[in-house]
Amino acid sequence: MQGQNQQQAYDRGITIFSPDGRLYQVEYAREAVKRGSASIGVRAEDGVVLLVDKRIRSSLMEETSVEKIHKADNHIGIASAGHVADARQLIDFARRNSQVNRLRYDEAIGVETLTKDITDHIQQYTQVGGARPFGVALLIGGVDEDGSPRLFETDPSGTPNEWKALAIGSGRDDIQSYLEENYQSDLELDEAVGLALRSLAESHEEGLTASGIGVATVDAESRSFVELTNDEIDEYLDDFDLQAESDDESEE
Amino acid sequence: MQGQNQQQAYDRGITIFSPDGRLYQVEYAREAVKRGSASIGVRAEDGVVLLVDKRIRSSLMEETSVEKIHKADNHIGIASAGHVADARQLIDFARRNSQVNRLRYDEAIGVETLTKDITDHIQQYTQVGGARPFGVALLIGGVDEDGSPRLFETDPSGTPNEWKALAIGSGRDDIQSYLEENYQSDLELDEAVGLALRSLAESHEEGLTASGIGVATVDAESRSFVELTNDEIDEYLDDFDLQAESDDESEE
Amino acid sequence: MQGQNQQQAYDRGITIFSPDGRLYQVEYAREAVKRGSASIGVRAEDGVVLLVDKRIRSSLMEETSVEKIHKADNHIGIASAGHVADARQLIDFARRNSQVNRLRYDEAIGVETLTKDITDHIQQYTQVGGARPFGVALLIGGVDEDGSPRLFETDPSGTPNEWKALAIGSGRDDIQSYLEENYQSDLELDEAVGLALRSLAESHEEGLTASGIGVATVDAESRSFVELTNDEIDEYLDDFDLQAESDDESEE
Amino acid sequence: MQGQNQQQAYDRGITIFSPDGRLYQVEYAREAVKRGSASIGVRAEDGVVLLVDKRIRSSLMEETSVEKIHKADNHIGIASAGHVADARQLIDFARRNSQVNRLRYDEAIGVETLTKDITDHIQQYTQVGGARPFGVALLIGGVDEDGSPRLFETDPSGTPNEWKALAIGSGRDDIQSYLEENYQSDLELDEAVGLALRSLAESHEEGLTASGIGVATVDAESRSFVELTNDEIDEYLDDFDLQAESDDESEE
Amino acid sequence: MQGQNQQQAYDRGITIFSPDGRLYQVEYAREAVKRGSASIGVRAEDGVVLLVDKRIRSSLMEETSVEKIHKADNHIGIASAGHVADARQLIDFARRNSQVNRLRYDEAIGVETLTKDITDHIQQYTQVGGARPFGVALLIGGVDEDGSPRLFETDPSGTPNEWKALAIGSGRDDIQSYLEENYQSDLELDEAVGLALRSLAESHEEGLTASGIGVATVDAESRSFVELTNDEIDEYLDDFDLQAESDDESEE
Amino acid sequence: MQGQNQQQAYDRGITIFSPDGRLYQVEYAREAVKRGSASIGVRAEDGVVLLVDKRIRSSLMEETSVEKIHKADNHIGIASAGHVADARQLIDFARRNSQVNRLRYDEAIGVETLTKDITDHIQQYTQVGGARPFGVALLIGGVDEDGSPRLFETDPSGTPNEWKALAIGSGRDDIQSYLEENYQSDLELDEAVGLALRSLAESHEEGLTASGIGVATVDAESRSFVELTNDEIDEYLDDFDLQAESDDESEE
Amino acid sequence: MQGQNQQQAYDRGITIFSPDGRLYQVEYAREAVKRGSASIGVRAEDGVVLLVDKRIRSSLMEETSVEKIHKADNHIGIASAGHVADARQLIDFARRNSQVNRLRYDEAIGVETLTKDITDHIQQYTQVGGARPFGVALLIGGVDEDGSPRLFETDPSGTPNEWKALAIGSGRDDIQSYLEENYQSDLELDEAVGLALRSLAESHEEGLTASGIGVATVDAESRSFVELTNDEIDEYLDDFDLQAESDDESEE
Repeated sequence: MQGQNQQQAYDRGITIFSPDGRLYQVEYAREAVKRGSASIGVRAEDGVVLLVDKRIRSSLMEETSVEKIHKADNHIGIASAGHVADARQLIDFARRNSQVNRLRYDEAIGVETLTKDITDHIQQYTQVGGARPFGVALLIGGVDEDGSPRLFETDPSGTPNEWKALAIGSGRDDIQSYLEENYQSDLELDEAVGLALRSLAESHEEGLTASGIGVATVDAESRSFVELTNDEIDEYLDDFDLQAESDDESEE
Repeated sequence: MQGQNQQQAYDRGITIFSPDGRLYQVEYAREAVKRGSASIGVRAEDGVVLLVDKRIRSSLMEETSVEKIHKADNHIGIASAGHVADARQLIDFARRNSQVNRLRYDEAIGVETLTKDITDHIQQYTQVGGARPFGVALLIGGVDEDGSPRLFETDPSGTPNEWKALAIGSGRDDIQSYLEENYQSDLELDEAVGLALRSLAESHEEGLTASGIGVATVDAESRSFVELTNDEIDEYLDDFDLQAESDDESEE
Repeated sequence: MQGQNQQQAYDRGITIFSPDGRLYQVEYAREAVKRGSASIGVRAEDGVVLLVDKRIRSSLMEETSVEKIHKADNHIGIASAGHVADARQLIDFARRNSQVNRLRYDEAIGVETLTKDITDHIQQYTQVGGARPFGVALLIGGVDEDGSPRLFETDPSGTPNEWKALAIGSGRDDIQSYLEENYQSDLELDEAVGLALRSLAESHEEGLTASGIGVATVDAESRSFVELTNDEIDEYLDDFDLQAESDDESEE
Repeated sequence: MQGQNQQQAYDRGITIFSPDGRLYQVEYAREAVKRGSASIGVRAEDGVVLLVDKRIRSSLMEETSVEKIHKADNHIGIASAGHVADARQLIDFARRNSQVNRLRYDEAIGVETLTKDITDHIQQYTQVGGARPFGVALLIGGVDEDGSPRLFETDPSGTPNEWKALAIGSGRDDIQSYLEENYQSDLELDEAVGLALRSLAESHEEGLTASGIGVATVDAESRSFVELTNDEIDEYLDDFDLQAESDDESEE
Repeated sequence: MQGQNQQQAYDRGITIFSPDGRLYQVEYAREAVKRGSASIGVRAEDGVVLLVDKRIRSSLMEETSVEKIHKADNHIGIASAGHVADARQLIDFARRNSQVNRLRYDEAIGVETLTKDITDHIQQYTQVGGARPFGVALLIGGVDEDGSPRLFETDPSGTPNEWKALAIGSGRDDIQSYLEENYQSDLELDEAVGLALRSLAESHEEGLTASGIGVATVDAESRSFVELTNDEIDEYLDDFDLQAESDDESEE
Repeated sequence: MQGQNQQQAYDRGITIFSPDGRLYQVEYAREAVKRGSASIGVRAEDGVVLLVDKRIRSSLMEETSVEKIHKADNHIGIASAGHVADARQLIDFARRNSQVNRLRYDEAIGVETLTKDITDHIQQYTQVGGARPFGVALLIGGVDEDGSPRLFETDPSGTPNEWKALAIGSGRDDIQSYLEENYQSDLELDEAVGLALRSLAESHEEGLTASGIGVATVDAESRSFVELTNDEIDEYLDDFDLQAESDDESEE
Repeated sequence: MQGQNQQQAYDRGITIFSPDGRLYQVEYAREAVKRGSASIGVRAEDGVVLLVDKRIRSSLMEETSVEKIHKADNHIGIASAGHVADARQLIDFARRNSQVNRLRYDEAIGVETLTKDITDHIQQYTQVGGARPFGVALLIGGVDEDGSPRLFETDPSGTPNEWKALAIGSGRDDIQSYLEENYQSDLELDEAVGLALRSLAESHEEGLTASGIGVATVDAESRSFVELTNDEIDEYLDDFDLQAESDDESEE
């Protein structure tokens, strides 16, 4: 009881520290991320892949309307996990910053630069009063002007991190373990898609369906964000024997 | 008791997360939606239909003044469920955005674009302090410039979703089940009106009356929002044998 | 006890939802309306009548200063029930909007348009922080340019409704029942005045007095707001045998 | 106990309703009015009289500095009861509005117009947050351009009322009863002064003293606000046999 | 206990009324005044005298730095009791207003005008949120252009009062009683200084010392604020046999 | 218990009075001053000396970085005790005001003028909401244009006082007692340095070290702020036999 | 229990003092610093070294993305400990100030000047409401224009201090003890790197790895910030026999 009361005293206000130096509102926002379905990013030698688990609440919902993968610029995609409406705000922010960069410097924004623009924006919502933190984490994948694939993560505290491969959202611990055990630095983009799919399948005993997931890639040569069609996803699922037998209609 | 106190600590302030990452004020606003009478949307191959259940509090109230279906633009209608006054704010917002789009780009706004304008507006009320979330859900139905019928939902969190058919408000679970079991993707608009009426009738044992419901359609060819007259509704009710024997004067 | 504490937790702040999706401050403002003396509106074929119950606190108070009927524009009158000072704010708002409409469009404002201007204004006070809702309901009666008599209601939530006949304020349930039982759609204005008087008399066993009530009409032909003199009211009371034997000095 | 706790929950914040639709802060401000010494207004056929009970805390205090009667304009006087410093703010507001009226329309402001300017100002302090209501009631007496004497009251809620005769402040119930029993509509100004003095004397067993009261009149012919000298008051007290035997030094 | 809890509920916020119509924050600010050492003002026929009790905390403190008497303008002095830093704000306010008056109207500000400027300023801090009331009372003494000596008091509520003689601060009740018993309206300035000194001595059994008090006068002829030197004060103390035997070093 | 609860109710908000007229936040800020190491000021006939006790937390900390003596202008130094970061804000404020004075009036600012600029600034933080008081006291020593040495104190309430000699911060009571017993008004600057050192040594049984203290003087002739070197301080310590045997590394 | 409740009362609001004069929010922010991995700074005769402990959460995280050493300007580096997103804000602030200095004065900013710009910025967040303090400490190391190496610390209160050598973050007490025992003022830069590495190794029984730490130097001659490569770090680790046997993957 005592410990719990102690905690309650510090986690109601957004902008204050607890006696042990933690920001509870930010940690609770991380829980909002965990409540969202999983998103996975894997960096290959020749590109980046983003994979998202789309939970369709009803057979009548358009699967395309479950927005978890977004094109931020020609060469950058963003996958999110957590509070969907919050994600849309950050995506809009990312798109505006990308456009401004093109207008101002006449060149595509760097993946790291864009990531840090976003995390600085997120941090403001954890320090200044009058608003709550963003309840969403992002995977920002793209290819820089020099052809280097990059994969970054933003979290509700506003900390940027670069990854070779990363899972966020529901079941991230299991998926991340799978990635750590199976990631190889010389992956090609096709293999990276496969790794991402297999890591997600670990937490889906019943297998995967093309309609229940989304996949996007940015390859190093074209530097173009491309979303895979259901048919293309099906091919991958067949290749890796991950195809579920019946349609997955789990609830979000 | 403990669990309840726990909850009370996090649901009073609008802009903060609970320890498990939820935004209680948004979830309570969803309850306000459930308190409202049902609205139903069905997308056909050649148009969209919106159907609303109008609860008249008294025989002296003008049925036409129970505003649950609104024309947002020539080609887009909006049906609401929940807090009526809040709905009016969002409808006004939608109309202004539609007009601005015509002025600025000299063309009709896309149904998805309008939906996302609205959800971004709604999201602000869940993150920034000094106001409560909107206690209303909307069904936004229309036909895009290319003739595609579209049907979107907005909820109090500001998340946009696209649907083939959807019910919001009181009794939505039962109606949605009926829709899921009976929806066919090759519906024509007339059949869609029928499906919507039959799904609503499921929760009205005593049958329906033209004065107690409202129906509007946007057909793909004319791209024009049209509200059905009571006589036209009566015809449908007769066709489907859904006509109540006496006037329905249930309370809202 | 439990239920009560539960309630207390959500009804202190103006802008938040309770767990069951209600806005307590708005509901309490409705109680403020019920504490006010009754106002009645009846729509006839050829006009609208507004009737108010004026409670004079003392024989020395000027009955004319109990402002419950207001002229909003030449063709629109407004009767209020509830917090008097709040009503004055909305009346001022209505008058300004009517004038602006004349200046801007060179024509009299529509009754429905004016009503919705007012309800949108009211809604703001239920969503944005820093103020309480308006503790008043209004009956807005007038005649549109096409000669149609209209009668609208606004409540503290900001919801507009159109009525054939309606009572607001103290004793509204009884009066409304009387109206529902006795209203006929082909009423002439004189008969409507009589219906309103008789419905109020239901809750005044001792009868009515001209000084204790106020009556105003807008007839469809002249489209002019007119307040009846005490002598004119006396005539009606005599006609309907509703005259009290002694002066009514009930307290407000 | 229960009832009391119930009440405590709603009377701390200025801008919210209690479950029964009351605004406690406004009601408490009315208590501040009752804590002030009495002020009385009486309307005669040919003018208006304002009478105030001045409580001198010490024989060394200048009686003239107990400001309870104020000249708002040549033709309008204001008597207050309650929080003195709050009264001064409203008097300043009244004077500015009177001057503005003269400048803008080149004519003296109407007594009713001025009253409603003041009550609208007062109402704002009961609805918008960040300030408390005014803890004062005013009697506004004057003569309109057509020679009609007018007497208005403002209370902390911002409700305007017109009276033939009225008492506010400490002991108002007894004084008002006396006024109701003895007021006659054909009073001349001199008689009105007498009535006011006699009504106040009812609650002063020891009689009145010129130094303990203030009297001002606006007569219909001259339309001029005039404060009576102590000698003139003494004459009235002698005439009505209301003179106290020794000086009254009651505390405020 | 009950009464105390009752009180606690209303005295924490600055801008709200208690159920009995009191503003606790203002009353507590009056306690801050009582905690300050005494200040005394006496009006003579030919001028005004201000006398302050200066408590020196240490023999090393410069007695002149205990600022309790201030020159507001050539013809006006101000003595304070209570929160010293608050007093300085009001003195600055008074000086600015005096200067502005000279610039704008080319004449010295009236003592009553200045007083009311100050009290209106003080009142704002008791009604509008975001600040606490001023914890200080002022004695404002001066000579008007017509040669009339005036003596006013301001208190934390913002109420102005005019006095013949007055004490504020610690021990004010005893000093005021002495003043009431011994004040005569035909005092000359020298006698007024004596009266003020004798009234203060009543509460100083050990007698007074020139270094422990401050005296200033404004005489009617010169209309000039003059502070007495320690030698001049010593003369008065000798004349009235009020000289303490040893230096007074009481704490503030 | 009772008394303590009573207190808790009033000391959480910055801008409110307790029932006995105290401002707890200001009194707690005074505790912050007492938590700081001591600073001492002594006024001599021919100058002013400021002495500070510097607590070095670690042998690796640069002693010069413990900023407790600051040059505000050529002729004015300031020593602080309490919250270091708050002191820096006031020092910056003092320097800006000194520069502005030179620019505006082409002369050095008076010591008293500067002090009162600072205290007025401090007072604002005790009355207006949205910030806490400054947790620091200052000793402001300098020489005016006429060659007079001046020594002032500011405290967290914003009260200015002038002193012959004063200690603030940790152990101030003992040091002040020593100063009161040993101060002589005809001290020369060298002797004043000695008095300050001896008074501090009273609370340092182990003696003083040059590195653990800071000394600055402004002499009346040059009107120049000068900080003593460690060698110069060592000489004084030797002269007065106050030298510690080993280095002092007490914690702050 | 008592003591704990006492504490809870004062540590929730950012801008208020506790009864013993402490600012709990600032002290809790210091805890956030202690939760971060260690950073170490050592000043040599010919330069400054910054060393940081980088905790990689997963083998898939890019070690370079754990930003704990930042280049503020050509001649200044900053190492942080604590809340990463907060650190980024201060680094951005530092970079902007450095650039502005170059633009405005056409010269590199002094290390001390930059430090104090930052601490003044930090202090604002501890005094003015509406935001929380920064949960981060910084080590600011650089070389001034005269070739002097400087090493400063900023803490969450906004206090600047200069050091010869300092550790912040997790395990700082042990590392600081090691530094105090082994620091010599005539260190050369290479030796300083060694000292920093050995002091960190004290708390890493398993030894250090190049990938788990970051090292940067600014040498006095070139005045250039340089980050060491993993190979260069490996050389140092070999030289000092601090190399761990296997890769360190401790969690942050």
